[in-house]
Amino acid sequence: MTTETNTALDQAIRQLAKDARAASRGMARASTEQKNNALLTLARLIREQAPALRAANELDLTAARKAGLEAAMLDRLTLSDKGIESMAEGVEQIATLPDPVGSITDMNTRPSGIQVGKMRVPLGVIGIIYEARPNVTADAAALCIKSGNATILRGGSEALNSNRAIAALVQQSLAESGLPAQGVQCIDTTDRAAVGILITLRDDIDVIVPRGGKGLIERLIKESRVPMIKHLDGNCHVYVDDDADPEMALRIVENAKTQRYGTCNTTESLLIARSIAGSLLPRIGAMLKDKGVVVRGCAETQALLPYAEPATEEDWVTEYLAPLIAVKVVSGLDEAISHINTYSSQHTEAIVTDHYGNAMRFLREVDSSSVMVNASTRFADGFEYGLGAEIGISTDKIHARGPVGLEGLTSQKWIVLGHGETRR
Amino acid sequence: MTTETNTALDQAIRQLAKDARAASRGMARASTEQKNNALLTLARLIREQAPALRAANELDLTAARKAGLEAAMLDRLTLSDKGIESMAEGVEQIATLPDPVGSITDMNTRPSGIQVGKMRVPLGVIGIIYEARPNVTADAAALCIKSGNATILRGGSEALNSNRAIAALVQQSLAESGLPAQGVQCIDTTDRAAVGILITLRDDIDVIVPRGGKGLIERLIKESRVPMIKHLDGNCHVYVDDDADPEMALRIVENAKTQRYGTCNTTESLLIARSIAGSLLPRIGAMLKDKGVVVRGCAETQALLPYAEPATEEDWVTEYLAPLIAVKVVSGLDEAISHINTYSSQHTEAIVTDHYGNAMRFLREVDSSSVMVNASTRFADGFEYGLGAEIGISTDKIHARGPVGLEGLTSQKWIVLGHGETRR
Repeated sequence: MTTETNTALDQAIRQLAKDARAASRGMARASTEQKNNALLTLARLIREQAPALRAANELDLTAARKAGLEAAMLDRLTLSDKGIESMAEGVEQIATLPDPVGSITDMNTRPSGIQVGKMRVPLGVIGIIYEARPNVTADAAALCIKSGNATILRGGSEALNSNRAIAALVQQSLAESGLPAQGVQCIDTTDRAAVGILITLRDDIDVIVPRGGKGLIERLIKESRVPMIKHLDGNCHVYVDDDADPEMALRIVENAKTQRYGTCNTTESLLIARSIAGSLLPRIGAMLKDKGVVVRGCAETQALLPYAEPATEEDWVTEYLAPLIAVKVVSGLDEAISHINTYSSQHTEAIVTDHYGNAMRFLREVDSSSVMVNASTRFADGFEYGLGAEIGISTDKIHARGPVGLEGLTSQKWIVLGHGETRR
Repeated sequence: MTTETNTALDQAIRQLAKDARAASRGMARASTEQKNNALLTLARLIREQAPALRAANELDLTAARKAGLEAAMLDRLTLSDKGIESMAEGVEQIATLPDPVGSITDMNTRPSGIQVGKMRVPLGVIGIIYEARPNVTADAAALCIKSGNATILRGGSEALNSNRAIAALVQQSLAESGLPAQGVQCIDTTDRAAVGILITLRDDIDVIVPRGGKGLIERLIKESRVPMIKHLDGNCHVYVDDDADPEMALRIVENAKTQRYGTCNTTESLLIARSIAGSLLPRIGAMLKDKGVVVRGCAETQALLPYAEPATEEDWVTEYLAPLIAVKVVSGLDEAISHINTYSSQHTEAIVTDHYGNAMRFLREVDSSSVMVNASTRFADGFEYGLGAEIGISTDKIHARGPVGLEGLTSQKWIVLGHGETRR
């Protein structure tokens, strides 16, 4: 922050945050109709301006190819015709969701005569920090608009031209609907110092939602002075209990591990009760081998599955995001809960059991954002839970846990309806 | 942290936090009956051990007098017989409150067949940092026990002997009820560096609740790496609208400003609509003068109340906690809302009006933790709101706003009840 350039950047980011704070009042006041109008206008503009969006995206892609970005990153960076259409559809879908802002709950009349309850209100200004995925620009902006927040978007620098083009459409939609154009702003620089400044602006930014790799999140945890709704990693577990239905266990493990390898709700560790492991683990192992999934197991697992590699301590904490699974034979429910509460990332864990008491204890005692009985961990998702959309999955405990939808972008204030009451 | 002493302290605090994390599992699992037993035992022990508590307190008082502590601080430090009895009663009252832990809400069946809902769970480990008020030790411990959390208490060093004596009774109560004694721990050193270490232990402490003066809170905001539920200050407003009932306005301003001067929900600024100021402000001014409250006003206020001192920009942001009030004549609702959203500390604001639309706009648009119509700001309080108890009043937006009771010390996780469902 000592060079002249950084001082200028510092001032620019601070001003942007102040503008966001000012715009947040208008966003919070907006009627449901205005917000939906803005979203439907945005969807229309995305479709109308598809050629311009593709042209902007092509600039990013050309630069990215020249810089030698790897294929997976290029893929995420690409705005195809299909991608643009699904971006528009996503925005329209958010317009159909109920408006969380202003809803009043829990009104009670107190002995003093006042009525006390809670009103749902926007958080204020939300900063979204994400990687080079331009579709997130429209998606995150739409969620924040619907929840009445002002937004500062900071996408990966490789997507700057694409993000700039999408953000211009968002601002046009806001202005055409009578909302403050600065309700959504995009940080229009590739200077990496911008994020470092943004995460210190506690007065003008209410929450930061980082969406990205573990490296980014870990850096932000260390440096951010603004509260965050964040997702660190998804080291999810399935525990197959003594009283599990073997067919159900086989089906759930298969789905939880192999339906998709790269998602945060994919199971990375399997725990299985000793009493059932002898008969069931070989069947599970055969299924996994058949799917090309490498097993890293404890000594008992290796005895039952000769092709299993030995698991190290590191395997119990690793989110593989790959055709790899850690397997441990445990004595029963107590050891399973203890193992999960020690090693899991508190994302999603499932038990397979027909024992009522064990199911209830697992639900109560496992300290993760989603805890499931007889279902695949892959269900941990805002759409599957019925939120209609999600800004991310929180592995924090404060404010919002698990899939975060519109409600997670709001807070509740207390309201008091009186008739002239004074306190004695 | 470079000296040997600090390394030893560092290790001691880290171990204490690890012990708290370990104990938090047992606290979270505890039945309502076990928790209530622990609280009732604690109340009994507080009464039985009153002489020992007074003796421990006398050690603190003697040292404090020797150190020349001012009267108000000595007063807060003192454990009288009455204070000890009301401490026991407070703990008993918390035992009568409903247990928030384990309650399941919002269960819905999804098209996939799974049932999805939320279960209320403890936050885990809560650190309470407070000043030299030993009654807080029992009060905070009781709230954390009932909400299933493990607690680390760090009271003002002037109260160390008193806190140590109370904490010993808390640990005895936990042990006698089959709960982990380390579910409540007291930091047993006067070394001020202990707080600096505590607020960095993100892995083992889930939330810090600071209760104390603005200086302490501001320092913690800068330094804490652990999320906080905090209360910065209470610069509360009453806005008297054009359509206010004059008698009601007079009554509410009197109560909000003069019932108690030193509380955070006391009104510090009065805003009054120009159309009603001419007739009403002189009456309000006479009442305030009569009560010995000094008025600092804008030019229009000074014209109407010749004895008013001129208000500076500083007055609009100040929490006086004294017989002093800032008064401003405004053009109407818009200016009032804008003034409040600019200068208030987002604690509590009230409108006095008979205009339905203005009441609704004030409720919706004022961005504070409590917003009231036709009631005194003095009602912003966990007991008046029906929470049964409060750990503090949060001026944050994330997680908990306003008075924070048992529910604010919990979070919600998602639970999924399945029947073998897998994701398509």
